[in-house]
Amino acid sequence: MHDIAVIGAGRIGKIHAANASAHPRIRLKYIVDPVADAAQSLASATGASVASLDEVLADPSVAGVVIASSTDTHLDYSLRAIGSGKAVFCEKPIDLDLQKARAAAPALGGGAPLFLGFNRRFDPNFRRLYDRINSGEMGRLETLHIISHDPAPPPIDYVRVSGGMFKDMTIHDFDMARWLLGEEPVDVYAAGAAVVDPKIAEAGDIDTAKIILRTASGRICVISNSRRSGYGYDQRIEAFCAGGLLRAGNMLSSTVESWTECGARGEPLQNFFLDRYAQAYREEMTHFAEILDGAKPLVGYEDGVAALAIAEAAMDSHLAASVVSMTS
Amino acid sequence: MHDIAVIGAGRIGKIHAANASAHPRIRLKYIVDPVADAAQSLASATGASVASLDEVLADPSVAGVVIASSTDTHLDYSLRAIGSGKAVFCEKPIDLDLQKARAAAPALGGGAPLFLGFNRRFDPNFRRLYDRINSGEMGRLETLHIISHDPAPPPIDYVRVSGGMFKDMTIHDFDMARWLLGEEPVDVYAAGAAVVDPKIAEAGDIDTAKIILRTASGRICVISNSRRSGYGYDQRIEAFCAGGLLRAGNMLSSTVESWTECGARGEPLQNFFLDRYAQAYREEMTHFAEILDGAKPLVGYEDGVAALAIAEAAMDSHLAASVVSMTS
Amino acid sequence: MHDIAVIGAGRIGKIHAANASAHPRIRLKYIVDPVADAAQSLASATGASVASLDEVLADPSVAGVVIASSTDTHLDYSLRAIGSGKAVFCEKPIDLDLQKARAAAPALGGGAPLFLGFNRRFDPNFRRLYDRINSGEMGRLETLHIISHDPAPPPIDYVRVSGGMFKDMTIHDFDMARWLLGEEPVDVYAAGAAVVDPKIAEAGDIDTAKIILRTASGRICVISNSRRSGYGYDQRIEAFCAGGLLRAGNMLSSTVESWTECGARGEPLQNFFLDRYAQAYREEMTHFAEILDGAKPLVGYEDGVAALAIAEAAMDSHLAASVVSMTS
Amino acid sequence: MHDIAVIGAGRIGKIHAANASAHPRIRLKYIVDPVADAAQSLASATGASVASLDEVLADPSVAGVVIASSTDTHLDYSLRAIGSGKAVFCEKPIDLDLQKARAAAPALGGGAPLFLGFNRRFDPNFRRLYDRINSGEMGRLETLHIISHDPAPPPIDYVRVSGGMFKDMTIHDFDMARWLLGEEPVDVYAAGAAVVDPKIAEAGDIDTAKIILRTASGRICVISNSRRSGYGYDQRIEAFCAGGLLRAGNMLSSTVESWTECGARGEPLQNFFLDRYAQAYREEMTHFAEILDGAKPLVGYEDGVAALAIAEAAMDSHLAASVVSMTS
Repeated sequence: MHDIAVIGAGRIGKIHAANASAHPRIRLKYIVDPVADAAQSLASATGASVASLDEVLADPSVAGVVIASSTDTHLDYSLRAIGSGKAVFCEKPIDLDLQKARAAAPALGGGAPLFLGFNRRFDPNFRRLYDRINSGEMGRLETLHIISHDPAPPPIDYVRVSGGMFKDMTIHDFDMARWLLGEEPVDVYAAGAAVVDPKIAEAGDIDTAKIILRTASGRICVISNSRRSGYGYDQRIEAFCAGGLLRAGNMLSSTVESWTECGARGEPLQNFFLDRYAQAYREEMTHFAEILDGAKPLVGYEDGVAALAIAEAAMDSHLAASVVSMTS
Repeated sequence: MHDIAVIGAGRIGKIHAANASAHPRIRLKYIVDPVADAAQSLASATGASVASLDEVLADPSVAGVVIASSTDTHLDYSLRAIGSGKAVFCEKPIDLDLQKARAAAPALGGGAPLFLGFNRRFDPNFRRLYDRINSGEMGRLETLHIISHDPAPPPIDYVRVSGGMFKDMTIHDFDMARWLLGEEPVDVYAAGAAVVDPKIAEAGDIDTAKIILRTASGRICVISNSRRSGYGYDQRIEAFCAGGLLRAGNMLSSTVESWTECGARGEPLQNFFLDRYAQAYREEMTHFAEILDGAKPLVGYEDGVAALAIAEAAMDSHLAASVVSMTS
Repeated sequence: MHDIAVIGAGRIGKIHAANASAHPRIRLKYIVDPVADAAQSLASATGASVASLDEVLADPSVAGVVIASSTDTHLDYSLRAIGSGKAVFCEKPIDLDLQKARAAAPALGGGAPLFLGFNRRFDPNFRRLYDRINSGEMGRLETLHIISHDPAPPPIDYVRVSGGMFKDMTIHDFDMARWLLGEEPVDVYAAGAAVVDPKIAEAGDIDTAKIILRTASGRICVISNSRRSGYGYDQRIEAFCAGGLLRAGNMLSSTVESWTECGARGEPLQNFFLDRYAQAYREEMTHFAEILDGAKPLVGYEDGVAALAIAEAAMDSHLAASVVSMTS
Repeated sequence: MHDIAVIGAGRIGKIHAANASAHPRIRLKYIVDPVADAAQSLASATGASVASLDEVLADPSVAGVVIASSTDTHLDYSLRAIGSGKAVFCEKPIDLDLQKARAAAPALGGGAPLFLGFNRRFDPNFRRLYDRINSGEMGRLETLHIISHDPAPPPIDYVRVSGGMFKDMTIHDFDMARWLLGEEPVDVYAAGAAVVDPKIAEAGDIDTAKIILRTASGRICVISNSRRSGYGYDQRIEAFCAGGLLRAGNMLSSTVESWTECGARGEPLQNFFLDRYAQAYREEMTHFAEILDGAKPLVGYEDGVAALAIAEAAMDSHLAASVVSMTS
């Protein structure tokens, strides 16, 4: 049994708190949030206490903290928690500033472990895809297609502080690309557009992108992103291998179909990440329990920095309308 | 090159005439139909001449006839054509009267060949299913499900002369069951109902049925029939074998799908038999060419009688609400 | 928070104990099992104590009991628990003896509630199917197909005490038929066979059956059962309505597909009931919490008796090879 | 009835000759091929005569010619036929040399019509996709994914004279992109690789590519190409629109599925273009008949030049590893 705290009582903090409180090997001791009502409400629902981050870090019984607060606090809180000897399970992204993130390397190395919450690596379907790619059953992976389209754009106020689509949304896909390809890109070309909502363009961001990554060994990865699909949360991956194709499809809200004279219709896609990745979030908490038991994180700080670097290169590519090298 | 005649210029006669005229080894010489306009129109469209049945049977250049006239003429025309030494390709059913059909056996045996047009045996999907069942890859066939639902009921005037749903519609399924099971039923239970249209009940017929056939070796077959599906022409078969399942599904009108917030929707099923079995009708004509070359018909008079016998037993079962033995 | 006990520490008892201990509104207080090791092991895993049934029934803090012991104890334990004022969540079947089950009616009526665990009613897919049928979107339900094939037969020792396939396995399908049709059958025809394993025949049972139920309003239901599919746990339902078809399909173990020159292949079906109905078991426990809060059970003793009566009629039908009336 | 000639008795010439000879409004009069045996064999099979191109062009009864000879003859034969007043149905590509193709514009304008055989525009599935995109039911088309993977690479001798993958294979996809997007690309980025066969690299070509096209109005198109899929002929298109997704999938060789403990498996994809586009080739011949009746070609010389220009830009992009503008 490991005592932990959850920092942040917002949407994602609630998920992690519920999973922590239901986990047989974790005890959720504290909730931390500057909004007192939010903290108290989540603490009540999960049987935890409200505390400040200082109190949490000073409590020697606390083995780890889940950092689910706003993005601008991720790196700072991670550094403080690791400085206090607490294991960290930090939501993505590690930071929006690549240089700042890189500068933290010395302070983050060698001490308590940092687990970065790229949820898709823990989705059972993508995990199964990863395992089958790496089993070699289909021969060498040659090219990869990742489709990640959100059902609808976030509020424009969120867009303004999000760091831009590449750092906020595509960063998941960059991590998936690195994980499934097993190597780093050598160059990036990103064709972006703002076609969904003119307010997004006014905020200096894009809502649609197609990206090509190339690796040193000649593999090519295509990523497709949209902030609005019109049909739910589209999360598909196709791995083209020498011997054939391995692909992971969408999850539907049920297996029911209706057949009418208009054709057969399935049920809607699971609509967004809280549903689609509910199991992934549970698996993340189990992995955090393993880390508290001494295991090495399957995804960490370096992965966060690497994905962030691709996101910056993608933004450079989009703005310059040209290919950007990752090796210089 | 074989010269043939098509008897009947209605819906199914037009199909066979078009296929005959497009076939590289068949020459469509004559069209026969008591309705002069219909005969002339079809003859013009296919480059054939109009003739009477007597003229056709008297023409020594005619090697075979396709009998696509009304059901009550099938047996009589078949007997006359075979008596004249012409090969026969006769539409199903061979007759609506089992005793009359059985009585024709002596006259039909030993002379010119009779090919009975159970179209589904020539559908490439069901043929592939048959081949895979019989390849033994899945082990012994144990039970069989046949679903055959029409998109919408026929006109009530047709219902009145159809011989009843079992002889008109289910007879296809009885033939499929015999073909795929490779043995005859020993008993039949048919639960029928008229739920689609009260006029069908008034005409003394049913529009819905579920039927169980059992064979001597212990195989069990379920047939599901409806005169109205609400979603097109549903033609599916599932063959449960010792090692797994083999199934043949529906054909769609195209591969296009639309994904919206209501779910993914395929295109409608191919709507009815002229579309769904277009390829089967072409394959039938090719088989008739093979028969004219000397091949033995893959399906013949005996198959028509056997299916008709099951249809009569099914009607008896439905009327008595009890199981009817086929072996007594 | 409601204190409960789980009676039975076998396969299904473990499921219910784990779900009870994870449930936010239920506290698992006791485990009861005559095998001391099994009871102790499950109690340790779930934080409960070991007790005898007498101790459980005598403890006024216990609000309800989950009866997951062997089938021959279901009715007796239910009667004792209800006699002690405890709410009951009893696994199916209520008993194997229809007369004995019916005789218990006076003792079971009016006191503490009895919730009978027909798990499929709580599966989200079948629940969604039920809701859509009853929404009327497709018009009147006319006929129903239920396929329930197990991946592999149980041990022959289990078969011998199971009460026979109809009471042990098909009873789920009889319950689904009653639930989805919304009415009782008026007659039953069951064609059974033992083709999977001769030992099953030697034990006096069957392993394969196709069953037709008819209702007073003219609806027809087909049930297909097999003790061995060769391809996993096949759990499908098709509801043919006046306006089209509603169907619930199988759950796959992941969304990954492999495409090779042999064709596209999905992942295996979720293999058996512990996986396929994991969510249903959780929903059952939530429903038991609602019952402990005062709600009326969605499925109870009467449903168990009704399904048992159909199972007896089906066995009579199979043995006599004839249709059996349910109304006399 | 229009008399035509087919120039070229190779693989694609045989297809067009068979479709011409089966077409009710076309009479196949001549076959032209420098290989006398090939010409004679195809003429015998289709009831045509062997002739030289000069004889064909000099025969005033010939209304049109199908040019299915080697790529290096396409433009020359087209010019000669049009100069003789014959309507032309020319296989793609119009030529491998963009400057030469452009230079032919004056000679090809205003005289007899030239129909360029981009077969995919006549595939019923892609035609249906086009119609549904343009119906507006899904709102504005925003981005497009085209997947076109061949089952296996062509012989290396063919690769050497093919003009390179972009002009030989991707040219179909460039045409589909122009047709479905309804506008021209403004820039192109092509990431190519030779991973399938080192001999292809030695021949100076690639076998794998991912390409991004951008249009003036901000639409983005991704094309994926491979000379070897390992699983058959993969021909899929996804059209992401403001209101949802429209997609066209692959055609299977039959609807049969097998379900085993390894999962459900469909039948293989239709393996290559002769099967996959058999219907498209028939529709092309019907369109040629319409052109001979006076209709304007749905796809012509200008489309061939435009697709060739994109292919050249793609090759430039691949070689320079940079984005290439199409507007300068």
